[in-house]
Amino acid sequence: MDALEAIQTRRSVRKYEKKEINDEIVEKLLSAAMSAPSAVNQQSWEFIVIKDREMLDAIPTFSPFARMAAHAPLGILICGDTRNLIAPGFWVQDCSAATQNLLIAAHALGLGAVWTGVYPMDPMDRRVIGFTKHCQLPEGVVPLAFVAVGYPAETPPKQNRFDPRRIHTNVW
Amino acid sequence: MDALEAIQTRRSVRKYEKKEINDEIVEKLLSAAMSAPSAVNQQSWEFIVIKDREMLDAIPTFSPFARMAAHAPLGILICGDTRNLIAPGFWVQDCSAATQNLLIAAHALGLGAVWTGVYPMDPMDRRVIGFTKHCQLPEGVVPLAFVAVGYPAETPPKQNRFDPRRIHTNVW
Repeated sequence: MDALEAIQTRRSVRKYEKKEINDEIVEKLLSAAMSAPSAVNQQSWEFIVIKDREMLDAIPTFSPFARMAAHAPLGILICGDTRNLIAPGFWVQDCSAATQNLLIAAHALGLGAVWTGVYPMDPMDRRVIGFTKHCQLPEGVVPLAFVAVGYPAETPPKQNRFDPRRIHTNVW
Repeated sequence: MDALEAIQTRRSVRKYEKKEINDEIVEKLLSAAMSAPSAVNQQSWEFIVIKDREMLDAIPTFSPFARMAAHAPLGILICGDTRNLIAPGFWVQDCSAATQNLLIAAHALGLGAVWTGVYPMDPMDRRVIGFTKHCQLPEGVVPLAFVAVGYPAETPPKQNRFDPRRIHTNVW
């Protein structure tokens, strides 16, 4: 799929066919994610690839906006490893760029995906605690976002978000 | 250009030909940026399109890592409008996803671009003050990143950042 078309036509997909995603495709998604730029090339991202059915089914019990996980063949938890950063303030941007790459790659490969936010919720929020315990994250590894992925069983309508009011020339 | 290829082969480009970028191309870049997902679709992004030569030339005086601005035909300052957010904590992720879309689109269109970070530097940092004054940003509009864009006058080598050590299956 053409790059501009992939960017323009990507939508959040929350319903999936009952069809597994093979490891080669998963590797392509993660390779796309890791191709993102990062501050001083620190590559602060880590990826938990969740294919275990019971683990995916349990996610909605602590993350109400990730109900689709129970019907997805694949979930990817994007985390920032904040333990040894060169540019500490920038890990959120590094990981967000990686997540966006992953979403575009999924769409280009004929998959559907949706980004559900975790960080910067309160560390005591049940989503943060839930993902941390569920995936046995070490201290300092922070869950940024959970992305559910599958072969799409819905086709959200096209949407043109272009808004000229958000463009300013030279000055605000 | 194919979407996966664009994602994989995009690199930071800091040297540009002396060639203007027409408005149609600028609109394609911004349309790609605004196609990003955002928390509760809040679209917290705003874009300052800088083509004024004197303004671009002055950027390195307050932003030492944006020296290439003085040789770029175009700069885009991506800002978050934090004044009326539905999901306040998520504007950095919204704007980072938009910035990444912009970088991929630039590469796919035969341009070169580089992301230089601003947020979350100290509000008293000269880069934050510099961009805020330079572009006359209202209070509550926060500069996240400055992206310089141009027709590439350098070809950074391909880089494969895929690192299997960053992949964890089900649990860390």
